[in-house]
Parts: sequence; C-alpha cells; structure tokens
Amino acid sequence: MKLWGGRFEGQTSELMEQFNASIGFDWRLYEADIEGSVAYAEALADAGLITTDERDQLQRGLGQVLEEFGNGQFELRLSDEDIHTAVERRLHELIGPVAGKLHTGRSRNDQIATDLRIYARMAIKRVDESLCEVQRALLTQAEAHQQALMPGYTHLQRAQPVPVAHWLLSHFWPLQRDRQRLQDCRDRLNVLPLGAGAMGGNAFGIDQESLSQVLGFDSVTLNSMDAVGDRDFVAELLFAGALIGTHLSRLAEDLIVYSSAEFGFVTLADAYSTGSSLMPQKKNPDSLELARGKSGRLIGNLVGLMTVLKGLPSTYNKDLQEDKEGLFDTIDTLLLTLPVVAGVIGTLQINTERMRAALDDSLLATDVANELVRLGVPFREAHGMVGQLVRAAETQRIALRDLPPETVRATHEGLVDRWLHIFDPARSVEQRQSSGGTAAQSLATQLAAARGCSN
Amino acid sequence: MKLWGGRFEGQTSELMEQFNASIGFDWRLYEADIEGSVAYAEALADAGLITTDERDQLQRGLGQVLEEFGNGQFELRLSDEDIHTAVERRLHELIGPVAGKLHTGRSRNDQIATDLRIYARMAIKRVDESLCEVQRALLTQAEAHQQALMPGYTHLQRAQPVPVAHWLLSHFWPLQRDRQRLQDCRDRLNVLPLGAGAMGGNAFGIDQESLSQVLGFDSVTLNSMDAVGDRDFVAELLFAGALIGTHLSRLAEDLIVYSSAEFGFVTLADAYSTGSSLMPQKKNPDSLELARGKSGRLIGNLVGLMTVLKGLPSTYNKDLQEDKEGLFDTIDTLLLTLPVVAGVIGTLQINTERMRAALDDSLLATDVANELVRLGVPFREAHGMVGQLVRAAETQRIALRDLPPETVRATHEGLVDRWLHIFDPARSVEQRQSSGGTAAQSLATQLAAARGCSN
Amino acid sequence: MKLWGGRFEGQTSELMEQFNASIGFDWRLYEADIEGSVAYAEALADAGLITTDERDQLQRGLGQVLEEFGNGQFELRLSDEDIHTAVERRLHELIGPVAGKLHTGRSRNDQIATDLRIYARMAIKRVDESLCEVQRALLTQAEAHQQALMPGYTHLQRAQPVPVAHWLLSHFWPLQRDRQRLQDCRDRLNVLPLGAGAMGGNAFGIDQESLSQVLGFDSVTLNSMDAVGDRDFVAELLFAGALIGTHLSRLAEDLIVYSSAEFGFVTLADAYSTGSSLMPQKKNPDSLELARGKSGRLIGNLVGLMTVLKGLPSTYNKDLQEDKEGLFDTIDTLLLTLPVVAGVIGTLQINTERMRAALDDSLLATDVANELVRLGVPFREAHGMVGQLVRAAETQRIALRDLPPETVRATHEGLVDRWLHIFDPARSVEQRQSSGGTAAQSLATQLAAARGCSN
Amino acid sequence: MKLWGGRFEGQTSELMEQFNASIGFDWRLYEADIEGSVAYAEALADAGLITTDERDQLQRGLGQVLEEFGNGQFELRLSDEDIHTAVERRLHELIGPVAGKLHTGRSRNDQIATDLRIYARMAIKRVDESLCEVQRALLTQAEAHQQALMPGYTHLQRAQPVPVAHWLLSHFWPLQRDRQRLQDCRDRLNVLPLGAGAMGGNAFGIDQESLSQVLGFDSVTLNSMDAVGDRDFVAELLFAGALIGTHLSRLAEDLIVYSSAEFGFVTLADAYSTGSSLMPQKKNPDSLELARGKSGRLIGNLVGLMTVLKGLPSTYNKDLQEDKEGLFDTIDTLLLTLPVVAGVIGTLQINTERMRAALDDSLLATDVANELVRLGVPFREAHGMVGQLVRAAETQRIALRDLPPETVRATHEGLVDRWLHIFDPARSVEQRQSSGGTAAQSLATQLAAARGCSN
Repeated sequence: MKLWGGRFEGQTSELMEQFNASIGFDWRLYEADIEGSVAYAEALADAGLITTDERDQLQRGLGQVLEEFGNGQFELRLSDEDIHTAVERRLHELIGPVAGKLHTGRSRNDQIATDLRIYARMAIKRVDESLCEVQRALLTQAEAHQQALMPGYTHLQRAQPVPVAHWLLSHFWPLQRDRQRLQDCRDRLNVLPLGAGAMGGNAFGIDQESLSQVLGFDSVTLNSMDAVGDRDFVAELLFAGALIGTHLSRLAEDLIVYSSAEFGFVTLADAYSTGSSLMPQKKNPDSLELARGKSGRLIGNLVGLMTVLKGLPSTYNKDLQEDKEGLFDTIDTLLLTLPVVAGVIGTLQINTERMRAALDDSLLATDVANELVRLGVPFREAHGMVGQLVRAAETQRIALRDLPPETVRATHEGLVDRWLHIFDPARSVEQRQSSGGTAAQSLATQLAAARGCSN
Repeated sequence: MKLWGGRFEGQTSELMEQFNASIGFDWRLYEADIEGSVAYAEALADAGLITTDERDQLQRGLGQVLEEFGNGQFELRLSDEDIHTAVERRLHELIGPVAGKLHTGRSRNDQIATDLRIYARMAIKRVDESLCEVQRALLTQAEAHQQALMPGYTHLQRAQPVPVAHWLLSHFWPLQRDRQRLQDCRDRLNVLPLGAGAMGGNAFGIDQESLSQVLGFDSVTLNSMDAVGDRDFVAELLFAGALIGTHLSRLAEDLIVYSSAEFGFVTLADAYSTGSSLMPQKKNPDSLELARGKSGRLIGNLVGLMTVLKGLPSTYNKDLQEDKEGLFDTIDTLLLTLPVVAGVIGTLQINTERMRAALDDSLLATDVANELVRLGVPFREAHGMVGQLVRAAETQRIALRDLPPETVRATHEGLVDRWLHIFDPARSVEQRQSSGGTAAQSLATQLAAARGCSN
Repeated sequence: MKLWGGRFEGQTSELMEQFNASIGFDWRLYEADIEGSVAYAEALADAGLITTDERDQLQRGLGQVLEEFGNGQFELRLSDEDIHTAVERRLHELIGPVAGKLHTGRSRNDQIATDLRIYARMAIKRVDESLCEVQRALLTQAEAHQQALMPGYTHLQRAQPVPVAHWLLSHFWPLQRDRQRLQDCRDRLNVLPLGAGAMGGNAFGIDQESLSQVLGFDSVTLNSMDAVGDRDFVAELLFAGALIGTHLSRLAEDLIVYSSAEFGFVTLADAYSTGSSLMPQKKNPDSLELARGKSGRLIGNLVGLMTVLKGLPSTYNKDLQEDKEGLFDTIDTLLLTLPVVAGVIGTLQINTERMRAALDDSLLATDVANELVRLGVPFREAHGMVGQLVRAAETQRIALRDLPPETVRATHEGLVDRWLHIFDPARSVEQRQSSGGTAAQSLATQLAAARGCSN
Repeated sequence: MKLWGGRFEGQTSELMEQFNASIGFDWRLYEADIEGSVAYAEALADAGLITTDERDQLQRGLGQVLEEFGNGQFELRLSDEDIHTAVERRLHELIGPVAGKLHTGRSRNDQIATDLRIYARMAIKRVDESLCEVQRALLTQAEAHQQALMPGYTHLQRAQPVPVAHWLLSHFWPLQRDRQRLQDCRDRLNVLPLGAGAMGGNAFGIDQESLSQVLGFDSVTLNSMDAVGDRDFVAELLFAGALIGTHLSRLAEDLIVYSSAEFGFVTLADAYSTGSSLMPQKKNPDSLELARGKSGRLIGNLVGLMTVLKGLPSTYNKDLQEDKEGLFDTIDTLLLTLPVVAGVIGTLQINTERMRAALDDSLLATDVANELVRLGVPFREAHGMVGQLVRAAETQRIALRDLPPETVRATHEGLVDRWLHIFDPARSVEQRQSSGGTAAQSLATQLAAARGCSN
C-alpha cells in the first residue's frame, strides 16, 4: 500500500523502492509516531471531521499497533516505505477504511517533523542521565582523592602539583556544559510542527494548541514552510553529541596515557580492559580507546547532516530523509559509550604513590619565582632567574632543592632561608587559593558545586 | 624579548619562530588583551602586589599601547611571538622594568582564554546585529507582499499556493533561532578564566570577583585546569556560524533558482550582480552564489576546531593556538556576508505577475481532495481519486478545471457543483488558517511576531 | 571463548563486552577472513609448523565455516567479539584443539589489516562496475541527443547553446576520474600486511611471498609497525567515495532543477519518482534528491575516519576498530545509489522542444561579440558594445535580433549584414570547434573517447 | 575597470564589490596567470587573430607586469576584482587598447581553471620536496639507531622490543604513500582546460595542442562544461594534504608522549621547544603540538571544499571562487610544517638507555609462547599458559624471568631449560625475520628501500 499512488501510471522500480524506503531505520520512531496519531485522532474528532466512534476505532487500532511494535510482533515490509505508511497500512488491516481518515489534513512532512522532535526530546533526556552518571563517577573518585597530589600537566610536561580530585573534576565541568547545551537544544526544539501539512498549513481547523499540550510541546510553529524544512534541532543535537565526543576523547587520552607502564598513574579494571590474541602479557585500555575513537563518528554525523542541509531549497526535500540515521547513530553511540566511561571511572584504580613519586622539584619552580616576587623582584625577572636555576640543576643532574646554597644566594639573598620550605607540593597547592584553584577551600567549593549539579 | 628564555641554552630555530608565532593573527585581540591587563593591574594593586604608583604607570603605559594599536602605529615584530608578548614588550619599552610586574601570577594560558572570551562576546553582538539586518530586510519585503501569491514548493515541484510574504518569512525564523543560539553561547561563555594561571590557579590572592565585574563576566571559573583547556565556546560559536551559513545557503538557493530565466520570480539589483568577461548578456547572481559557497568555509572551520580538540590531553596544549584563525574567519565571513544578503533582499525586485502565472490548477489538487473529505470521503480515498483526475488531465493535456463534468461527477456526485470554486488560489490560501498557516489572520500573527523579534 | 583471557582475573563487564564487540558488523568480512586463514594454514604447513594432516583439517574446517556463513547457518554470538574470534571459535567446535594452531605467529592486528584490504579491493571492483553503468546510461542518452540543442548555463543563467549530448557527457568525465582514483587506491593498497603480527613481525619463517601471491597481493609490507597501524587505504577509498557523492549531487541538482515545472527540460520515469501523502498532484524526484543527499553521509564517513586517525599513537590502537562501519556504509551507499542513478538516466525523458524553446537570442550575444572581433574590434571593446545592445533590447523588451538596424549599424557598420545569420544556435554550436568544444567533430571525438572508457 | 560592465545600468554596491573581489588572495596566481596569457597571445597570433606585432606588444607588456609583481611594485586595487582583471587593467595602462585583444575567445572561467592547475602542479612539487626532507631526517636517525632497542607499543601498552630504526621508519612509509598520492593527483590534473571558454568552447581555432605543450600539460580537456566546473583536482590535493596532516599528527603524538618526563625516550632540541610565561622550568614541545594541531585546518579545508561542491549545478558557479583560500592555506601550512618536523627529527636526541630500561620481561611473553609452540603446544593453548605466568609474576610483583622454576616446569617441562635464554630482547628482535620484521636482515632491506625512495 502506498499513500500516493493515484496519479502514477508506471510501477516504482524495485531498486528505487529499496533506495527510497526509510522503514529500515525509521521504524524506531514508532512510539512517537503513534503518540502523535492518537493525539491527531482526538483533534480530528474535536474539529468534527470524524465521529467520536471513529476516533475510538482509530485510537484502539493505534493502541494495538503500538502493542505489536512493543512486543516485536509487528511485521515490517519493504513496501511499507516509512513508519507512517507502515502504521497506516496495519491500521487499515485492523480497522478497515476508517484508517484512511487519520491522515486528513496531515502530511508525512509535518508528521515526521513531529515524530523527530518527540524522539529528540526523549533522547536528550536519556543522554543527560548518562552524562550525569559519568559526572557522578568522577565526583565519587574526586571525593575519595582530595588530599592525594599528582603532577598537573600542560603540553604533557609536568607543570604544577594539583590534587587528584582537581584533575578529575576538570573533566566534570565540560560535561556540565554539555548538559546545558542539550537543555538549550531541548527548549528550542519543543515547538509543534503538526498542522503545517505538506508545507502550506492545515485547512481543517485542527486545534493545535490542544495538540501541543497533549504532546508536551511548549508552542506551535509560526511558519508552515519552515516547520517542514527545519532540521536545525537535529544539527544542534548532533553538534552537542560531537562535543560530548571530544570531551570523552580528552578524558580517554588522559587515562590512556596515565595507564601506560611509564606513567602508571591509573590501572583499569579487568572488566574494562581486553587482551591481545598474540601477546599474552597485554592488558589494553580498549574501552577508552573506543571512547576516544567514537568522536570520529560523532563528528562525522554532524558533518553529514550539515552537508545535506547545505544549498537545499525551501521546505521539504527528500534529502532530509538523510537526517535520521546519523541522529540515531549519535544517540546510540552516546548511550553506549557514556555508561562504559562511567564504569571505567567508577572502577579505576588510582595509584597515588606513583603520582606522588612523579612530583619532582621542577614542578615547584613557579613557587620559587613567586617567592622572589614576594621579595620584591618583578615577576618577569624572577622568572628568568629561576629559569637559570633550573638549567643549572639540570646541567648538574641534581634536584632543584639540592643546588648549592651559594647558587641560591647569588640569585637572591633572601631566597636562601626560605629555600627548603618551598619544595613542598602540599604548600604549593594550598597557596593557590583562587576560585577554581587547588587550595583545600577552593576545592571544597568546587566539590560542593559539582555535587549540586550531578544530583 | 621572550617571556620564557631563562632555562634555555640553544637558540630557537628561525623556522620554529615563524611556525610558533601567532602574532600574525592574534594581534587582533589587542583591545581585549589590554582591557584584561588594565583590570589585572588594578587587581595586583588591590592585592598589595604593586604600589598604586606602579599601577598608574602600568595603566598609563597600557593606554598608550592601546592608542598605538588603534591608530596603526604599533610596530609588530615576528619576535613578538603573540599579542601578550607584543604588549608586554612595548610596555617595557615605554615604562621600563615595572612592566615585568604585570604578569605576576598570570600565565598566557589564562590570559588568552580571557581575551578570546571577550572577543567572542563582542563578535556575537555584532553578528546578532547583522542577522537582525537580514531579518528586517525579509520583514520589509514580506510586509510589502502579503497579498501576492506564488507557488510553494516541496521537492522543487509546485505544491500549494502561498503568500509571497509567507515564503519570505520562512527564511526569517531560522535566523531567529540562530540568534537564540548565539545568545545561549554568549551566556555560557561569560565565565572569567583569569586567575587560573598556567593551569593550577593563582597564588597571590587576586580578587577575581572584582575582576569579573570590571570585565563584564557573569561568574568565575570553578576549575583552573578546565579554564585554560576549554574551547567549548569557540566550537559552539563556530557551530552557530556554520548553521547560519547553511541557512543562508538555502535562502541563496531559492533566490538563485527563482532568478533563473525559467523561473523569473525575482530580479537581483545590478548592485548585487556581476557579469561575464566573455558573454556580454550575462547578469549573474554572484552575491548569492558566494553566500551559498561561504557555507563551506564555515563548516570547514567548525570541523577544523573539532579535529584539533579531539584526543587532546587535559589543560593547555599548544594545539589550541589553532583555535583562533578559524574563529576570526567565521566571524569575518559572517560580518561580510550578512550585510550583502541584507542588501540583496532589500533591493530585490519580486516579479509577482510571473509568480501568479505559475499558479496552475494542479496546485489546488489538495483542495479538491479536501472538498471530497468535506463530502464524507475518507482522506486516503479522496487522495487516490484526485490523483486519477490529475493523471486524466495530464493525459488530455488540459488544466484540471477543464476536465469534463462527467469525469468530475464520476469521482463524486457532490463535487460538480463546487468544482469551479475550488480553483481559486486565494481561497486555498485563506482556508489554511492553522497557526503558521497561510490565511490572512495566520500571516498577520506571524508578521506581528516577526516584528517583535527584529526590533 | 576469548582469544586472550589468560592473564586476566576479573570478568569483562557485560556493557564492555557489548561496547567492545565488532562482530555485529565485521562478520561481513567472513569471506576475506577465511580466505586469509586458508592461505595461512598452507603457509604454516610449508614452514613445518603444522603437519599436512593438520593443514587439511584446518582447511576443511574453514571450508565448512565458510559454507555456514554462506548459507546463513552460522550462529553469531555477542561473545564472539569479532570475526576472527567467531571463525576460530567455530573451527574449534568443528575440529577441536588443532584449531588453536591456526593463530601461530599471527595476530588479529595483521589479520584484520589483511581482511580489510581484501574487502576494499573487492569493493572497488564493484563500485567501478556501478560507475561504469552510470557512464553507459549517460553515453546512451548522449548518443541519442547529439543534434538537439539546449541552453548551457553558468551561474544557472543561460550562457550559450550546447548539444544535449555535450551537457550529458559533462557528467561522464567526473565519473571517469573517479574510476581512476579508485584504481590508484587499489594499486596502492594491494600490499600484504600478513606476517606483521601484532606489530613486530613474524618469528616463524612464514613465506610471505607465497602468501602474497595466493591472496592476490602485489607486494609485501616493509614495516610491520606501519602494516598494522596504516588505514590510509580506507581514508583514500572514503575520499574517492565522497567525491563520487559530490559528482552525483551535482548531476542530481541539474536534473532536479531541469525537472521543475518551470524548466521542464526532463521528465523522470514514474519508476524513479514518488508522490505526496497529502498532495495528489505531486510527482517528486525523490530518487535524485536522495542521491544528492547521500553526499552527506559519504563526506561524513570520510571526516569520521580522519578524526579517528588524528593524533593516534603508532601501530594498532583500538580506535581503529572505528574504521569499518563508515567504510561499509560508503560502499553500500554507492552500490545502492549508483544503479538508481543509472536507472534514472536510462529512463529519463528529455524534452528537447522545451530545451530548444529556451534558446533565446541573448545566448548568442557572445557570437555577436565574436563577429565584431572578426571585424577587427578588440574583444574587450566588442564585449562592451554588445553589452549595450543587450541592455537596449532588454529595455525595449524585444529580442536581440529585433533591434532596429540603425542601432546595430551604430555599433559597427559591418555588423548589419551579418546580423540575422548570427542568431542561429546551430551555427554558434558549430563554431566552437576546440577540443572539448561543441562542434560536431569535437563532439564526435568526445563520444568516441567516452565509448572507449565505458566498455 | 571591469571586464563586464556593458549591459549593466546600476552601480555595483561597495559592499558587494568587497564581497565579490578575490584579488585579495588570488593575486598569488600571478605567475601562472601571466604564463598562461603569454602562451595565449602566441596562440592568438598563430590563429591569425592578432598580428605578430600585437603579440609582441602583449608579451612585452605581460613581461613587465610579471616583473612588477615579482619586485613588489604592482599596485593592487580593490576594483581589480581578480588577478585576471588586475593583469588586464595594468596591461591596458602599459600598452593601450591592444590589451583588449588578449581576452579574445577566452573567459575567466577557463583562465582560472588553467591558473589553478599550474599552481597546483607547482605546489605538489614543493610539498613533495618537503616530504622528502622529513623522510631523509627519519632515515638519517634510523641509520644511526639500528642496534638500539626500544619497546614497541600497541594500545600505548608495551608490546614487543623493536629496533629504534624500525619505529622511526614506521613513520617513513606513510609519507611515501603521501608522495605517491600527490603524484597521482598531479598526473590526473595535468589536463589543459584553456579553450573551454566560459563553458561552451572556443570559436577562434586556437591551437590547444600547442598551448598544452608550451604550458607543460599532458593533454587537452574533452568537455568544455566539465573543464570550467571541475575542481576534483583541488579536492584531491586537499585530501592528500589532510592525510599528510594526520600522518604528522601521529608522528607528533608519539614524540610528544615519548618526550614526557615519564617516558623520557627523546629530548627535543631547544631550537624546537618553547617555554612558559609563568613556569620557569617548562620546556614544551610546541613545534610538535602545532604540527599535530595543524591536522585540524587541513581536514577543515578539505571539508570546506567538499561542502562548496555539494549540490552545485553544472559548469561554473561563483561558489567555486571559494576553492582558492583553502588550497593556499593547505599548501602554505604544509610548506611551513614539514620543514619544522624535519628540523625536529634532525635535531632530536634519542635517549637509548631510557628506552632500553623500559624493556621489561613482559615484552617477551610472546617469545615464551612461541617457545611453547616450538615444543609442540598449539599456539592458543600456549597463549593461555603464558597469560597465567604473566599474572603469577604480576601477583608476586616479580619479573617474569624470576618466576620459580617449578612454576615454569608446571607450565611445560621443556620450558625450563630454555627459560633464561628467552629474556633477551635482541634475540626476540632477531627472530622476527619476516619482510617488514625486526631482524637485522629485514631492517637492512627496509633501510635500502627507504634510501631508494628519499633520494
């Protein structure tokens, strides 16, 4: 059964039927599609276009179709073309010709736009929950590692000591921004397109305000041509997903590097590692490598849709059918990856003694410069002086603190007394009391804020 | 003058100096950079790290550097490395060693993050204004073309008649969503990173709340490692720009197609057309083709940054220097393209008679089906019946309305009486009274809403 | 059965198992995988690592596994992890412990690299055939439309008359370059990685030359670390696919525009069109819109892989598992889209009278200028003169040829005599005798060359 | 001076002039443009369209324009629009109206296609040389480190010992494939488009074969519409550049990780490192981070062009003007990055003792399994046995070789005797004698092949 055969003489080519059909993937929208149709049947009855009895038949029939989908009994056919056709075909089988009244004034163009927004809304909710799960895992580990110190890095070179919790939470906030982006996207997409018809609006006096309320939308479209041709919300969601992907890739990179034998800062649980088919000793962080690699498809999906949209004429063009697979893939990928990342973090063994051992004196070079500043030396000069001390220590292959007192004195008389006090990572960390800094109080504030977010 | 030479023995290779330097493009941030430094000097004085006299020297010196940039007298040197170095170098020339105190507790890492947020904030404001300009041009044309009708298209095939204003406004709303996205991005980015230092925070008791207020930020970073490594706001802004680009490409596509000899719906002003070096008759819509093509670089810039971010370790890595050129290019592109598009629309000649002439009867086939529905025929059957009428008319090479009465009657007895009334595009348009529909009242509501947005 | 459990204590998390498993998609490589294993069993026997009897058991077992896959009887399990594990697991069930000898000296790293190259080689062959099919369709239509003329366009504005065949063939040559690119890719990828092991080579004296010959490779890898980490050939193939996609999108764009009511140059067969669920009159070029839209996923797949590769450490990292789905999707998309496009073209009705009717005089303005050149006027001046004639005709709303003789004479005395001869599209077309030009002889040469390519 | 003003009445808007002008970047094509024009003047004379005297004037004039560009005296004006206009405008100033004959039968459409191919050809040559420079640097280091061993990694986990040279050369071969791709691109693009005119060919009997020879092309276009609309070669070159970018990003990633304090395998020369403005001890691998980050813009440029091409109608559209900036940027980026990478490698200090120290026993676990295979144990079982030995050693926190003899014996009687011989990395490396393997002979073959490539 086709929804449009009347004016056609020739048969659709079999190849074309296969090429054209979206039922292979858009069956996933069945819940949203049927939810929309149930509401639409109500609206048709309210507008006097069908009787209440017809409405009941339609709604009961739709209920049965939903059930068949839900319990896996619905039989898809290639000739179903798309989810709308499939549902209407089955409805017709179940309740006869009255099924043909459901589509009154409605087009697949406004129908799919409605379905997709309902789907996106639900998907955002679930991704948000999964992000929250990762945040909680980070927060739990952070709570447990507030005292332990590790080298903070820039350029993958040791920079300054930081609490392990501080590093862990540096991966918490990007996810918080991701959640806000998702929420913004959700607010923006929650506009009902139903009633836009094919592109010119609805001629049957359907009550869209009521439809909007029933279906949980916040408002109704103001332009029917825009309503059927707009896929901004898909692009925005794919972007949010792609950025989540890059955040996970950065977290994964840290952990992969830190779990190398050379760093040894963290050990992944066996549950999230795999081995080699050839090398018996290998335990590889496959979970994190995949999480890092998934950024590729997430960015690819975004690019795919942007390319589809580029240069498209107004309103609906069939190119837009290409919006769905990428969206489904992005959501599926996130809903699979995020729990794995949460699991990795939740079961991660953090080797604080290896971290501590990596806190060599050079990480406190800035503290030496700061001390000189407190002695009245302009920072820029202090920086230069300490740079030379670092070089001196390196040349002599000794730790900074072991430089001969005369070298220290030559730099600044006042430095000698304070010299040994400087080389205490805990002191360094405690001195950085800025907002977002490493001191205990700053960290406590940060942890409290994080707790507030991930509840 | 380098800000970091002390611990180095070997010279920087000349090639490396050139490769490493960002001054060739980041000089553009001079205003933001100096604004940040003036505020930081105040903060240093407040914290007792410099005297009020030193603060005054620094601020006066910075004022002079700003002036030199403003009037084009600042001489950049390749050895300046970046805007921060350039400013500090010049400041040192102007006021001597006290210049070396400005950088106390500050790193280029938190400095560039601050500069870039200030720049992005300003850029968003300007892009928003330009978007508004395009919206106003669309609105003005729409106001002037509320009665005139044209074919609405789906799949670039004639679908249903719509008011010209309705089509014009279908390009208004995507831009409105763009403006909202920009605003969301602006709200999210307006967090002060200054005080994060290189990545571990500030040890000198700088008052960040005050800095935040002076510099117009809404809050202060909660994690110093995130603060220096976060470029989400750049990605988000590039995405918003890329989506603006696709919106313009769709508008341009419509106009390019409509300005072909075959459509002839619109005529571009000479002011926004160019000719051919070979073919004397040509008048080409170059302005719109370029606007369409610019979507490429806008999407490319987004992909560029996402790729840079992918797999990067925590905090600052030099890769992040690659964030700026793409951002500048996106903003420049938008600020150049949007006014041109506004100009094209503002000066566009809309050939309403050509549009009207294109309203053949087939555009009213849906109205025939609707009439059958009103006669009690289920829509799906009605659709099939009308499809056959369309085919019959096509086969006989006549207009739909000219089908013999007996054919019409064969379809449905009740249809004959109403037959000729149906083929009035104005009636069709007026019947679609849904929100976002084409009827006069729906259009009036839409126009009022649009007026509210673009003020 | 895992290939690597020995050193592990903890169980793999269920979530991780699902996340890690590639068997859901890489089962498609079963033919290549088994082909490689059959050859490897031979090599093991040749190297004296297994007996000829063991070899026979292995090869018979593998033959049976292949058969089970081929007739759909192979039962995949999620715990199979990947195609290599699945095959070895089943082999073990079939022939017992000797199955465990097959993997001697081999790793999944060199195995998957081998499988993927075999797959890519086969895929290239099939895509090439499909490209050829489209080329033949274009050529057949071109052969049939050598005389018919149509407007050639630049900027979608009428430019100069061209034979319909010439326009059709302008879409032939890009596909020819695509085929060359595929061939280059094929030549470059045909290097055997088997024997690279996990990344350090093979310690068992396997005869790679012989393996290479048996498996149809042209040479053997020179660096085992490169062999397992190289996915250049996938990227190159995805790029070739993406460029095919843009070529099809340009062809589709032409045809979609030309099939609009306003152009009316071509009519798609019903077999490749679909209708509207709401508007009974609609016949939409969905096939071409989808073909145009598919460029999105093809470019997205390319970007996806490039992103995965970016910043990856040497040799094999699990991120590389993300290479396959995009590749399969690109190949599947091409193998589905290309035949549809061939079908569209093969059944396309070309409305030569509509094309002819669009050949207004302005298309011959360049011929007027050329005539002036022949009269000794420098081209640049001639161009300006004709531009003014065009403007004059436009202002007077008359055809160029109908300009008053005195206007023509005022331009150039010598122009009057030749005036009316100029306005013959066939003459214009025949004058452009350059290679790749529109004259009969040029076209004949072009057709001959095209025939040579698509055989 | 415009090349096309005649038919226009209204003035070009100033904004539009700025938007439309490409002279700001395409002036870079001046050499190619003038080279093409000198040849074209010859062709015009050969065809009898200008006198030999006029030809001489044109060629002398063009020579002077070239000189003015070469010594920086050429004054660009915004009104020059593009490089073709600029050259013709200046030529007109220098030699008067005869300048107006140069454009006879030629369009900017075939002219820019010619210029761009000449530029691309030259660019490929230079990029190839730079690639070769990096290859030579890798080869030189490899020659010097044939004996030294290091851990080879998969998943960034220690896998098997390899010669340092082997690892270095694993980055050589990807560049070799890049060079082949560039060469293929070069061969494919070297087709003369000149004579295609605006899109319909040349009506003046220009001798294209001769033009082709003079300008160094291999053949002449077969279709004029394709000739002016084809940008495949730009896309292909951008792809080749993007893949070079990912190769450099992988090399950079290795080196950045290896230069961390924790790995300590390599030390960058001061000449290719920079410091921190805040932390005096820092020495950062900025050169490599930038090289890694440049992959972003290279991929972005590719995506940008693909997006531009998507959905474009046949032949020339102004969107194609967007082809140049991305191309220039890709070439400039490569020509700046590659020499820096060559410099980094050429001056790299390789800390072989740190590498050697990292060769713990677990890297030889595969060798233990191989030994069991030689004792007749099927590999899969051997793998499992060794996995348990690895776990036992790890649990007891001892090296593999230090496992108690009874444990070894329990695994396999025959293993005890050979036990200690196994834990010699040099033996392991020497056993892998496959092509592309690590044994001395394999490495020698590889080095010889590499020498053959980079000469």
